Amino acid sequence: MAQSVVTTRILRRLLKSGAHFRAEKLLERVHPADFGPILRELTPDEIRIVIDLLFKHRRAARMLRELPPELLPEIIEAVSDERLAEVLSRLEIDDMLELVGALPEDRREVVLQHLPAARREELRHASLYPPHSAGRAMTTSFAALDEKMTSQEAIDSLRAMGLGANDAILYLYVVDDLKRLTGVVPIRRLVTARSDTPVRDLAIREMISTPPDADQEEVAKLVARYDLLAIPVTDVDGTMLGVITVDDVIDVITEEATQDIYNLAGLSEEDRVFTSARVSIRKRLPWMLVNLVTAFSAAAVVGLFEGTIEHMVGLALFLPVVAGVSGNGGIQTLTVITRAIALGEIEFSSGMRAVGKEMFVGLVIGSAAGLISGFIAYLRHGNPFMGLVLFLAMVVTMVAASLVGAAVPLGLKALRQDPAVGSSILVTFASDSLGFFSFLGIATLLLDRLG
Amino acid sequence: MAQSVVTTRILRRLLKSGAHFRAEKLLERVHPADFGPILRELTPDEIRIVIDLLFKHRRAARMLRELPPELLPEIIEAVSDERLAEVLSRLEIDDMLELVGALPEDRREVVLQHLPAARREELRHASLYPPHSAGRAMTTSFAALDEKMTSQEAIDSLRAMGLGANDAILYLYVVDDLKRLTGVVPIRRLVTARSDTPVRDLAIREMISTPPDADQEEVAKLVARYDLLAIPVTDVDGTMLGVITVDDVIDVITEEATQDIYNLAGLSEEDRVFTSARVSIRKRLPWMLVNLVTAFSAAAVVGLFEGTIEHMVGLALFLPVVAGVSGNGGIQTLTVITRAIALGEIEFSSGMRAVGKEMFVGLVIGSAAGLISGFIAYLRHGNPFMGLVLFLAMVVTMVAASLVGAAVPLGLKALRQDPAVGSSILVTFASDSLGFFSFLGIATLLLDRLG
Repeated sequence: MAQSVVTTRILRRLLKSGAHFRAEKLLERVHPADFGPILRELTPDEIRIVIDLLFKHRRAARMLRELPPELLPEIIEAVSDERLAEVLSRLEIDDMLELVGALPEDRREVVLQHLPAARREELRHASLYPPHSAGRAMTTSFAALDEKMTSQEAIDSLRAMGLGANDAILYLYVVDDLKRLTGVVPIRRLVTARSDTPVRDLAIREMISTPPDADQEEVAKLVARYDLLAIPVTDVDGTMLGVITVDDVIDVITEEATQDIYNLAGLSEEDRVFTSARVSIRKRLPWMLVNLVTAFSAAAVVGLFEGTIEHMVGLALFLPVVAGVSGNGGIQTLTVITRAIALGEIEFSSGMRAVGKEMFVGLVIGSAAGLISGFIAYLRHGNPFMGLVLFLAMVVTMVAASLVGAAVPLGLKALRQDPAVGSSILVTFASDSLGFFSFLGIATLLLDRLG
Repeated sequence: MAQSVVTTRILRRLLKSGAHFRAEKLLERVHPADFGPILRELTPDEIRIVIDLLFKHRRAARMLRELPPELLPEIIEAVSDERLAEVLSRLEIDDMLELVGALPEDRREVVLQHLPAARREELRHASLYPPHSAGRAMTTSFAALDEKMTSQEAIDSLRAMGLGANDAILYLYVVDDLKRLTGVVPIRRLVTARSDTPVRDLAIREMISTPPDADQEEVAKLVARYDLLAIPVTDVDGTMLGVITVDDVIDVITEEATQDIYNLAGLSEEDRVFTSARVSIRKRLPWMLVNLVTAFSAAAVVGLFEGTIEHMVGLALFLPVVAGVSGNGGIQTLTVITRAIALGEIEFSSGMRAVGKEMFVGLVIGSAAGLISGFIAYLRHGNPFMGLVLFLAMVVTMVAASLVGAAVPLGLKALRQDPAVGSSILVTFASDSLGFFSFLGIATLLLDRLG
């Protein structure tokens, strides 16, 4: 990162002094993956100049691909329709789809009209797959081999594709006359095989592949689980459609992790650290409203016992303790379970086991917390019944919070919903209102002992 | 997953009826990556039989590598020292280190004595690198080429390593006489090069490498950022030490995501869904104690204003609203910032910008929440001052919670600490106690207007 800070500083100085040629030379040496952090520090005017310089070198396409999403709208605005079309035509289909998605609706059609007809057709075809599916994430440029080829013929066909054009080819895909995938040849096998060996004999037959409508998260799990470098996407009849490579899978895993973390806090994916305040506010407002509803509902529970509190104001002090500790316990359970679901470690039958375990853990932790806080309450009020009330409330609430924390995500999963969305607010609501209800309820029952 | 459920059911039936030979045949067809979910459903006795069957086929090593960590102690106990040594000697050095780490202390030395001296030396050497470092994660088996070789000689040397032995070789590493890395040859270039081309001419010179003491998380970031399939680990003088491959990087990324999610909930990494309840309780107890301390401190803040509450019990109702909404806002900010730090999207100077943005967002959301809840309070009490108190408290607390939520992780990062550890409890503590203090404080100031 320190490197890119230095580069940015020099770049800005060159741009400011109008030394565009030297800026161009500097940009040439920057890895496309490093454009993001650099562009983040530039003003819109400077970005426009950089884009012009990159266009000369036909590097604008890769630069746009690596751009932090919050900068995209600004940059798209600064680029003409023709140039955008030129960039699009140079991107792989998955990146193309993403960039088209980022175009404002009114410009989309215009820009697409500037694309070559063949690419437009390709794009239209890919966009038929559901969002976040394998069909959208795959690249359609892969090395297919006729199963009747020898290994030397295979090497010749690779050579014909041009040296260096695609260093990232790792597997060659053997297809039959109907373009159906019949085997995979790791490129290393091709290197060391005799030149007259049929590629058929080099191929691995037991392949893991994925249909185009599979969710990209499931595809990522397959790749991670079987340590693959690329996974072929095939149609129902086995026709080879494309390939998803491990670098895309890494992006999916990182995205999904962000989404899981964000869901627990009720955040929307687009709400990133440098998203404009306006967008962040708009995204967070609905969640705040839901939060208000649950907070006022919990407050209404307290309201039910206003008489009890009036009788004994000291009770109000312990409300945050019951709610805080049990809320925390519920969120811990929720976190363990949603993470296990995300990693595919849990099924329905084992889910029931997990609920049982979490409730037991909640019972023990709740009892420990109840003993300590009950003792403190006893010391403060000199009344053992105050301690008893707090102890009982803590145990009941903690067990209930653990149950909700485990059951809600498993239930959502059973209903094929995202297990993390909205779970945390339900857990907090349950622990708050149950905590208040059990604490104040038990206190009301024992009120004549508390006085 | 459905597949493995069926396999497990059949396997159990075969084991129960003593049909070990057929069980063996079934196990032969299972991919090592699928052992985990299957073993999770078996009893310890059944696991012991399965291990015996796998040992016959020398597949026990891969199986142990794929095992869910919570099953490991049980299985290690069931296996003799000699067998464990045999398994260890078949593993790559990174997996070996992990398994040795899982051995109980009293067996470690005994098992290691059964290892061949060379492997023991290798293990000792690797264990000198810090935990979670590149040196521990790398494999030391890679294809090094002498820079004076031709491409045909390189192919011959690969062939000498044995066909199929390592299909995963993706890059060949060119080294000089002193074993210093001078270039990287993607295997695809070797395939299509003329046989007399010197490998020197095929090599990429501008390589990304990592020192052995780099943190594995930083290495994973490099691999993800530059779309690498493997990254060489080199010493200070450029000597090639080993390679970290992308499949290990995926594991690191998944682990780190789990850790980030867990840290926000105050969970320890070892506390997984099927970890024994005993371990989970032990891991969660300290956090619960910290939680109790902060909860009682927040309660003490309420205690400061017992007189005010006594005067006006209705105030107690709004305590959970102020604390709940601002706590939620603070956690949202914390989540956005810690995620940005984890993804390397934020530096110190941009961090200041992020703090400002989050405080502004907190101000707007706090004002909106304050207006709504203030209006509700006014309706309930028929007193506009009650609404005003709630409004002001909400705004103050929300801005403060946003400040804490953004500043704490950035501060921890500046101190080179993990930005997520303990942050959430600080944010909750700040929003709770500040919420109570500002709400009850303002109420006390305006008490004669509230009556």
